[in-house]
Amino acid sequence: MIVTVTLNLALDVTYRVPRLTPGATHRVAVDQRAGGKGVNVARVVRTLGEDAVVCGFAGGGTGRLALAELESAGIPARATAIGGETRRTVAVVDTQAGEATGFWEPGPAVTDAEWATLLRDVEGELRGARALVLSGSLPAGVPGDAYAVLCERAALAGVPVVLDADGDALRLGLAGTPEVVKPNREELATVTATADVREGAARLRELGARSVVASLGADGLVAVTEEGSWRARPAHPAAGNATGAGDAVVAALALGLARNRPWPERLAEAVALSSAAVAAPLAGSFDDDEYHRQRAGASVETLPMAAVGEG
Amino acid sequence: MIVTVTLNLALDVTYRVPRLTPGATHRVAVDQRAGGKGVNVARVVRTLGEDAVVCGFAGGGTGRLALAELESAGIPARATAIGGETRRTVAVVDTQAGEATGFWEPGPAVTDAEWATLLRDVEGELRGARALVLSGSLPAGVPGDAYAVLCERAALAGVPVVLDADGDALRLGLAGTPEVVKPNREELATVTATADVREGAARLRELGARSVVASLGADGLVAVTEEGSWRARPAHPAAGNATGAGDAVVAALALGLARNRPWPERLAEAVALSSAAVAAPLAGSFDDDEYHRQRAGASVETLPMAAVGEG
Repeated sequence: MIVTVTLNLALDVTYRVPRLTPGATHRVAVDQRAGGKGVNVARVVRTLGEDAVVCGFAGGGTGRLALAELESAGIPARATAIGGETRRTVAVVDTQAGEATGFWEPGPAVTDAEWATLLRDVEGELRGARALVLSGSLPAGVPGDAYAVLCERAALAGVPVVLDADGDALRLGLAGTPEVVKPNREELATVTATADVREGAARLRELGARSVVASLGADGLVAVTEEGSWRARPAHPAAGNATGAGDAVVAALALGLARNRPWPERLAEAVALSSAAVAAPLAGSFDDDEYHRQRAGASVETLPMAAVGEG
Repeated sequence: MIVTVTLNLALDVTYRVPRLTPGATHRVAVDQRAGGKGVNVARVVRTLGEDAVVCGFAGGGTGRLALAELESAGIPARATAIGGETRRTVAVVDTQAGEATGFWEPGPAVTDAEWATLLRDVEGELRGARALVLSGSLPAGVPGDAYAVLCERAALAGVPVVLDADGDALRLGLAGTPEVVKPNREELATVTATADVREGAARLRELGARSVVASLGADGLVAVTEEGSWRARPAHPAAGNATGAGDAVVAALALGLARNRPWPERLAEAVALSSAAVAAPLAGSFDDDEYHRQRAGASVETLPMAAVGEG
């Protein structure tokens, strides 16, 4: 069982139109499902045969819609009820241009009591869990060190943590000494003030991360851990929709952690799943054929311990 | 008390963005409220000091959001629950260009049992009502002559009907002999196959309408009734958002019917409210100052009984 926490849970609404024409009225085809990074991670984890549960705040009619979709998708959720209204993200997909235009609603604010309830709810799920995934931005009203607090609860329960966040949520979360931190190149550069990936990863480890896996888009992954450093590359370039690729990496890392796999295997899984997620239209899903092709051809190279200067 | 029926009740969501850029992701400011023509009519009626109740189908999380907004706006609703999900209409307003881009979800289908329940719900509200307003399109699953059936129930309760519909919903609704029918120019031309407004109005009366008030946009209104024919014009041109202008006309006509006002007074009210609705940003609201200015200057001219040829 892998527990994922998505504090800014959303309802992801997709409107498909033949052509987006500003100023016109469009009749749309609608898809909607629960969204947010931890939700995407849980979908991938479950597709790979491991149980996952989604934790997070949900409120109002939109929250109910998101939870109803999770239920119909067979994904267990332990939602913490809030007085605010869960946000929607609307993506208008122009099917001719193959282009998406996004509209993101602001998320609800959370009270101290709701945050305290979420902590208890997550603690309840941690019993027997094999990994805890903390993903995404923090809603207003939650303490800035929310991820550090959740890491401490996980440590008490003996559950290792994968943290995927940016900015202050990441910086302050490091105090909780998460087992794995997964920034992308920009997040790493912003938090560590260096564009050098391995140098940045080393700084995150000084700040509390046990291991750092930086996702570099088409360039694959760089991992810096106590056991060594590696560079993983996909078998071939991925084409498609990069949304959700990082969540697929996190899903692979959480599974590898839960199953105690060697690092090179975790990283080969992660680059393969990431590329297969790019090939799938929706975040939280991946193309199974592409996954197997990438898995067979992914390369993982050991990096010399002392080398710094990787950009 | 005026009862309004909105079979295709919706949640109208407005996203405000500084500039709509296809392909980009926008953080939006959100307004949302219950929508649909009968809902707009009820808002105007209540602003003018008469009680109104909203009837219609509502389902799912979106239906709950729409009903919650009506409640917070102090508008009583007798919603008929459906298994389907109430639709959203999303309007993205580019605040620089002053332009709205619309995305309309398909509405839910309704079962025979749900339609039968709605009829009972509306009948329950008709006791003591002074007018019934039937507005807008029919959802899938409702009989094509739905408005005729509702007219018959209203006749049994002794409640006069204002019908605002188009196409088959209007054509088949006329068999219920509604007291007032309010087409716009295009609706009238489509149903009667003539571009001549007074000739078209005469045909609608032959088909069952007691009185016809055609709304002609900036050209005002033409009314053809048993008591005579009139042409009403606004005091000055209206500038703004024409959405909801027709609903303001319907609100004035329903109030005039409920209060048994003479036709010229009803029509002066209707052109004034219509212009004042154009001056307000949201359907269902009107600009009070503009309303009073228009009301003081609106002209109502008696048309000779025999004259045909008004285009």
